[in-house]
Amino acid sequence: MKFVTYDYKGKENIGILKDKSILNFESIFYEIGEENPPKDMVELIKYLDEDKLNEVEEFLKSKSLQGVFLDTVKLKAPIPYPKRNVFCLGKNYEEHAREIKLTRITGNEIPKVPIYFTKVASPAIGNGDSIEFSSEVTNQVDYEVELGVVIGKNGKNIKKEEAEKYIFGYTIINDISARDLQGSHIQWFKGKSLDTFCPMGPCIVHKNEIPFPINLDIKCWVNEELRQDSNTKNLIFDIPYIISDLSKGVSLKAGDIIATGTPSGVGMGFSPIKVLKQGDSIECYIEKIGSLVNNVINVSR
Amino acid sequence: MKFVTYDYKGKENIGILKDKSILNFESIFYEIGEENPPKDMVELIKYLDEDKLNEVEEFLKSKSLQGVFLDTVKLKAPIPYPKRNVFCLGKNYEEHAREIKLTRITGNEIPKVPIYFTKVASPAIGNGDSIEFSSEVTNQVDYEVELGVVIGKNGKNIKKEEAEKYIFGYTIINDISARDLQGSHIQWFKGKSLDTFCPMGPCIVHKNEIPFPINLDIKCWVNEELRQDSNTKNLIFDIPYIISDLSKGVSLKAGDIIATGTPSGVGMGFSPIKVLKQGDSIECYIEKIGSLVNNVINVSR
Repeated sequence: MKFVTYDYKGKENIGILKDKSILNFESIFYEIGEENPPKDMVELIKYLDEDKLNEVEEFLKSKSLQGVFLDTVKLKAPIPYPKRNVFCLGKNYEEHAREIKLTRITGNEIPKVPIYFTKVASPAIGNGDSIEFSSEVTNQVDYEVELGVVIGKNGKNIKKEEAEKYIFGYTIINDISARDLQGSHIQWFKGKSLDTFCPMGPCIVHKNEIPFPINLDIKCWVNEELRQDSNTKNLIFDIPYIISDLSKGVSLKAGDIIATGTPSGVGMGFSPIKVLKQGDSIECYIEKIGSLVNNVINVSR
Repeated sequence: MKFVTYDYKGKENIGILKDKSILNFESIFYEIGEENPPKDMVELIKYLDEDKLNEVEEFLKSKSLQGVFLDTVKLKAPIPYPKRNVFCLGKNYEEHAREIKLTRITGNEIPKVPIYFTKVASPAIGNGDSIEFSSEVTNQVDYEVELGVVIGKNGKNIKKEEAEKYIFGYTIINDISARDLQGSHIQWFKGKSLDTFCPMGPCIVHKNEIPFPINLDIKCWVNEELRQDSNTKNLIFDIPYIISDLSKGVSLKAGDIIATGTPSGVGMGFSPIKVLKQGDSIECYIEKIGSLVNNVINVSR
């Protein structure tokens, strides 16, 4: 099942994406007589345990619901306002770790432990929304396609063997980065957290649709030029390792999002570097999830 | 005015701390006939603009309300669940920047730009709560008393001269840090974000009670031994600079918390280093705000 958050006729909804149409959860919950239906994606994630998921699936098989056409709605980020900052990993594909060197931090070494930082997504932007930057703030805006893992239930000190149980599903994150700020401020947070710098979507695919371990092609195009092209099997620290390691001493919560790192081919890795500019279009693609497309606007022009 | 979040008879409340008693906002709002009263501290912060603050102050002068005694309630962090991670500054007092050297990051240089990172506080713990760690996760737990600035209204690209208008008030943060994780994970986030590692409180003091610029004595004792002793006038990047710089390209929101950095005297600065251990008691004090006291528990014992 693919879950989406979308605006339709001025109202924010959650729904199921099926082919080119969307089934509204409000109708589904009305039909199955749910008295306290979840109102947003994080509530839905907490609600949809295995039993409830089966119940919804059985209902959908038994009844033909009328959806709305995808092209009549505005998709938003599946979780526009995460309850905590997005958890991110830096340098988690070997070729990317080698291509990029940020002064004074790690050089281009391969990390021996995961490098965690966070990113403000408030709101995360959705498919079709614009990434905005001002030349007065940054002149080195870069893209990073990443597999986003959405946590499904609360947990701490999670064992690697148990990690999949704590996953709800997967999405795409474009971890937009102001490289000049990322370097000058020493810690990466500020350069990762400018407004609109967290495109997310187009949907969350439930984990039941993607066999574990996760081997998915991951690509990114800028203006139709293929820049990043890898597979999530190339993660240095894989998903069970990340969930186990990050949750040591830190409670993960339903609705948390972990951006698992980007493969090689970012603009900063080219010589000379390639920065994003007004009018660029970025397509982030992950197999079985879909494409997340955003354009770039320089608001200082 | 001093604002608190507290549990009383099994219910979470917000109130005003006055001498040794607390006036419940629910009663205040009932008396002044507010139909949509704020239900938690972040809602209160959004609600209490200058006019509403005056209205509450006038009402309190005109009527003698019955409070509950401070020692009959459990104080919580003023904002137990911030909407985004706590924004933090590293190395923002010169003597502290010189005393501490984390391998491969910045050495003991004085920063030329603010170093921003974030800290999960979910929940932030309150006065009297325990800081818990497990020896299986970290063996270098350290304290850091810091002035916390609480943002009062949304803003972006804020001018230094306008910064005070965006402040709601001030609190104390103890930026508990696992130094081994902070160093090994390269980025500081994980070592700063273990569960219970964000004591906050005991209250938020409204900005009207503290003249700007902020010159407040700031101290920290471990088991009654004075370890940190400075004044907030010694910040390398002062509060107007921080708010202006951080908000360049990043929207700050009402209820956001900025921990402004710690003075010298942390455990990591001693030779040999001093780490926190089972049973230690930490008192963080800032003039005009009060004391935030927490004890340490090693849960792996």
